[in-house]
Amino acid sequence: MAHIELGNELPGIRGLMAYRPETAKPLNMLAEILLRDDDNTLTRGERELIGAYVSSLNDCFFCQNVHGALAGHYLDLNMQQIDAIKSDYTSGDLSDKMIALLSIAGSVQKGGKHVTAAQIETARNAGATDREIHDAVLIAASFCMFNRYVDGLGTWAPQDRTFYINRAPQRALEGYVEFDLDK
Amino acid sequence: MAHIELGNELPGIRGLMAYRPETAKPLNMLAEILLRDDDNTLTRGERELIGAYVSSLNDCFFCQNVHGALAGHYLDLNMQQIDAIKSDYTSGDLSDKMIALLSIAGSVQKGGKHVTAAQIETARNAGATDREIHDAVLIAASFCMFNRYVDGLGTWAPQDRTFYINRAPQRALEGYVEFDLDK
Repeated sequence: MAHIELGNELPGIRGLMAYRPETAKPLNMLAEILLRDDDNTLTRGERELIGAYVSSLNDCFFCQNVHGALAGHYLDLNMQQIDAIKSDYTSGDLSDKMIALLSIAGSVQKGGKHVTAAQIETARNAGATDREIHDAVLIAASFCMFNRYVDGLGTWAPQDRTFYINRAPQRALEGYVEFDLDK
Repeated sequence: MAHIELGNELPGIRGLMAYRPETAKPLNMLAEILLRDDDNTLTRGERELIGAYVSSLNDCFFCQNVHGALAGHYLDLNMQQIDAIKSDYTSGDLSDKMIALLSIAGSVQKGGKHVTAAQIETARNAGATDREIHDAVLIAASFCMFNRYVDGLGTWAPQDRTFYINRAPQRALEGYVEFDLDK
């Protein structure tokens, strides 16, 4: 049960967004632009993977499964493969650029000042543009907000991970801005 | 110097927002609704104080001074008094409700799961509504994003704190949504 009376039974951030639609609007806009906008050289799968990874570092069950399932959907990976990447992002088949960006995201999760000039240089040497570095940092930072919002208010989350896997294709179609909060 | 080439000399988050206006829009909307919207039983000063406190916990010089100066402007406190509250929020003249909300905000800064049912009960017993608890948590979470965004990309910040004090009245007038990024 959430720490406050939400007046709905929706899980995770969706219950909070239905409770406070005024703040839901910019939060959804931010997710839509950062994670889905087509004007981006990072794929949707790569961006969702950064969110899932940071959510796992923050131990947020709801977010790491929503966004892990979405990353798997886009990247054609199953949840076991996503879990393996979350545990060790060098273990999979990721590009050097993605490994460098996930390293930066992991530092952002600890705190902004943990990001080093050497990490930035490694990312740039692996082909990351300034815009990609910017977006990786802001995606990681935004999930440090989303995760704290979801868990700080004690929201509930379905424990069966097939829930998230089954919903990912529909979420991928609908995006974040226009999805129906009542569904 | 920032970790990426921003193409402008603006300090802190303002340089990042000018670099990437697409994400600046929802970030400013979020700040405007959370920190300034009149439909709120927390005063603007109380909300800015939560932001300043969390920014101090995250050791973000730019954010804690921008929002500390704004809190001081609204609450008629000088920077020494704001600093004292950031160091020990029980030391000042704050209401029991604000002390309870700052305690919750401090837990959110560590991670969402650090917020306890006992902290929520204390806040409620001190008169906090569910909406106020919700907003305190989201303000704290959002500053965990803003702080990481500002420091994760290595932005610069004026070191003379009178810069922030002098600008606070104008920022209070202009708000977050419509301020001119070039100023």
